[in-house]
Amino acid sequence: MGKTIALGPGKADLLDAISQSGSISAAARNMNMSYSRAWKLIEAMNRDFRFPLVVASSGGSGGGGAQLTDAGAEALKRYRRIEQKAASSVADEIKLFTALLLNDE
Amino acid sequence: MGKTIALGPGKADLLDAISQSGSISAAARNMNMSYSRAWKLIEAMNRDFRFPLVVASSGGSGGGGAQLTDAGAEALKRYRRIEQKAASSVADEIKLFTALLLNDE
Repeated sequence: MGKTIALGPGKADLLDAISQSGSISAAARNMNMSYSRAWKLIEAMNRDFRFPLVVASSGGSGGGGAQLTDAGAEALKRYRRIEQKAASSVADEIKLFTALLLNDE
Repeated sequence: MGKTIALGPGKADLLDAISQSGSISAAARNMNMSYSRAWKLIEAMNRDFRFPLVVASSGGSGGGGAQLTDAGAEALKRYRRIEQKAASSVADEIKLFTALLLNDE
């Protein structure tokens, strides 16, 4: 892949959901996403990043689980920080856009 | 709807495609989007904004066409400006993110 950030809102939310639920299937369910779609996104992230972002253990009596790696937690934290900085840099413009252009109800 | 911007990358690209092609069906085709999906997005925008963003004329020998209204062109211009400002506010962080975390090939 090229020099893009390789994370977007959907992947970041998926990482958050995995981190909270400890499970890919629960995370997918919480996001109304199919399990196979969630797997595809995880595979893409694990391939695009220098280190895997998610590790999954399959089977076992608990049915397996999934967690963010340290690299996953770091990537997510940086992504959220970037997102927040970008949003606050345009907060005034968005307020104006909203006031001028959108219906209020 | 609430106080959000009511435009995102997909809708903005659709507005651009309509503006370039003068046709909803051509715009949808260029974006690999179904016609009905494009219509749904347009209806949502025309409802969410104070003024319609897109006008379509159906039928006629030319098969009808579609254009951005002045409000549509204005909303798109503001959206692109916001997008650009947000992106440049985090350009350094994204460069660092890329260098630290992503595979280079």
